[in-house]
Amino acid sequence: MPFAPRSAEDRFALVTEVGARDGFQSEPKWIPTEVKAQVINALIDAGVSSFEATSFVSPRAVPQMADASELMALIRRKPGVRLTGLVPNARGAERAAAAKVDMMASFVSASETHCQTNLNKSQDAALADFQELAPIAHRYGIPLRGAVATAFGCPFEGEVSIDNVLKLVEAYLRGGARHITLGDTTGMATPPLVTRTVQVIQARFPEAIIALHFHNTRGIGLANVMNGLELGIREYESSIGGLGGCPFAPGATGNICTEDLVYLLHECGYDTGIDLEALAAVARQVQGVMERELPGQFMKAGSRLKLSSLESVRRAVG
Amino acid sequence: MPFAPRSAEDRFALVTEVGARDGFQSEPKWIPTEVKAQVINALIDAGVSSFEATSFVSPRAVPQMADASELMALIRRKPGVRLTGLVPNARGAERAAAAKVDMMASFVSASETHCQTNLNKSQDAALADFQELAPIAHRYGIPLRGAVATAFGCPFEGEVSIDNVLKLVEAYLRGGARHITLGDTTGMATPPLVTRTVQVIQARFPEAIIALHFHNTRGIGLANVMNGLELGIREYESSIGGLGGCPFAPGATGNICTEDLVYLLHECGYDTGIDLEALAAVARQVQGVMERELPGQFMKAGSRLKLSSLESVRRAVG
Repeated sequence: MPFAPRSAEDRFALVTEVGARDGFQSEPKWIPTEVKAQVINALIDAGVSSFEATSFVSPRAVPQMADASELMALIRRKPGVRLTGLVPNARGAERAAAAKVDMMASFVSASETHCQTNLNKSQDAALADFQELAPIAHRYGIPLRGAVATAFGCPFEGEVSIDNVLKLVEAYLRGGARHITLGDTTGMATPPLVTRTVQVIQARFPEAIIALHFHNTRGIGLANVMNGLELGIREYESSIGGLGGCPFAPGATGNICTEDLVYLLHECGYDTGIDLEALAAVARQVQGVMERELPGQFMKAGSRLKLSSLESVRRAVG
Repeated sequence: MPFAPRSAEDRFALVTEVGARDGFQSEPKWIPTEVKAQVINALIDAGVSSFEATSFVSPRAVPQMADASELMALIRRKPGVRLTGLVPNARGAERAAAAKVDMMASFVSASETHCQTNLNKSQDAALADFQELAPIAHRYGIPLRGAVATAFGCPFEGEVSIDNVLKLVEAYLRGGARHITLGDTTGMATPPLVTRTVQVIQARFPEAIIALHFHNTRGIGLANVMNGLELGIREYESSIGGLGGCPFAPGATGNICTEDLVYLLHECGYDTGIDLEALAAVARQVQGVMERELPGQFMKAGSRLKLSSLESVRRAVG
């Protein structure tokens, strides 16, 4: 069976919820810290065991993330639940360590233009920041993740060279980050591109533990996940309800949706440790909080075996 | 490379546009015949070569399809473009033949309850209607398609037995319909279910030419297409803009979206004969006509290599 687990030991797929960071960050309206914490706590109750919870960036640069430390303090910590904080530099790493994150994620864009635009520094400067922050993570015994933004294309430069991606992966691994995220920042990933990129990294750096971070900007986010499953990737990043957006394409969606992803993984035979019905209930709550319709589908349609009553019937040929 | 064509001869994937039938039919507001024709004609200009154009059902049963014959007369016919008409019975087949359809499609639901609810007759009565209409199609030399509705689950009965699906496929093939559509009427298909169903039919009836008709009700429509590609299926049904809905789940989407599907197929190395940019332009026009946002993503985001200008930059970490 394609896409299915390869053995009884290969049944677990890790879903990292990034809605509180990647999702909320692209919301223009301030979301109170208590609301952010409520969403994360509800997701923990639903069985989500990995989060990109917040970002320890400069509050001036990203006002929505100004409450990173306060938010961390409001989350009900639980053994086995990993809270990752994004850290742009040494200062962010010290703040993240003080807030007791379980993992630090550093991020550099594979595209020089995107790096300059998004991080306001060159790739080399961003990598120098990583080299400075990595020892801080090691000193506190906190595992490190290296995220490659625009790994599958850049909205300014177009195609991104695989060499640029490899250069970042190599620097991350040398700096002690074994976890590597390939970020499809603006939804440019396609199945053949994902296959080529993952296979080259797997061949060159077999020690890397690869996570895939897809956006559904052009509708094929979960098709890319199917491809990732076939490549043996067992870690995916997504946001509850499909929270977030794409700043380069008004009306387009952002991250792939957590509950739709979990539905797909479960149906393909994977275990995520997540209660899908409870997850969908949280998605509907988040939709209420955001006061707009979110792109997630499963939360609207419900379980595939939730039966309709005959009274609810309307004609539906097709 | 997974999902890719298996040889140079295996590059063509046929996309059948069903928006004018499955999409429009679930719209409560009357869509003028001229508008329906304009949409189909614009899609023909964009290179779409196969349509489920309309349905020759009773106008009382489905008022939106009351203009089937008039619509057919307004479509600019072109060699190589196949216009299919849905036909419920002998009377519909005579009307469809008079309207010069290129193919007739008969449909029966694999679930008895859905058949009763949707077609207002039993499976046996629906199959008897097929046996009565098939000779009419043959007499006019018009190819026949047999569509199995609720092939992957029924909103009233839940799981549908594979034996029920096989019974319908066998009846269709015996009656001279070599083209078989497996219809995921309410978005209950999952990759393992599609694999099992397709493989059993391929093994039992190797002469059947299978098309897959998915809905995106629970967000995994294109993931199911990826699975279909891996199984060797090269014909998919979809609707422009993702037009349509799901009468059993308010807010949920209907058919998979044609332009998102074509984007995926092209990126996976398939040729559809369709100009994707022209297709997206039609999708945006249809969105305007419907006066509401449609679920299609590609039409909002545009080509993955359409570059953004630096002036348009807003911060987008992730």
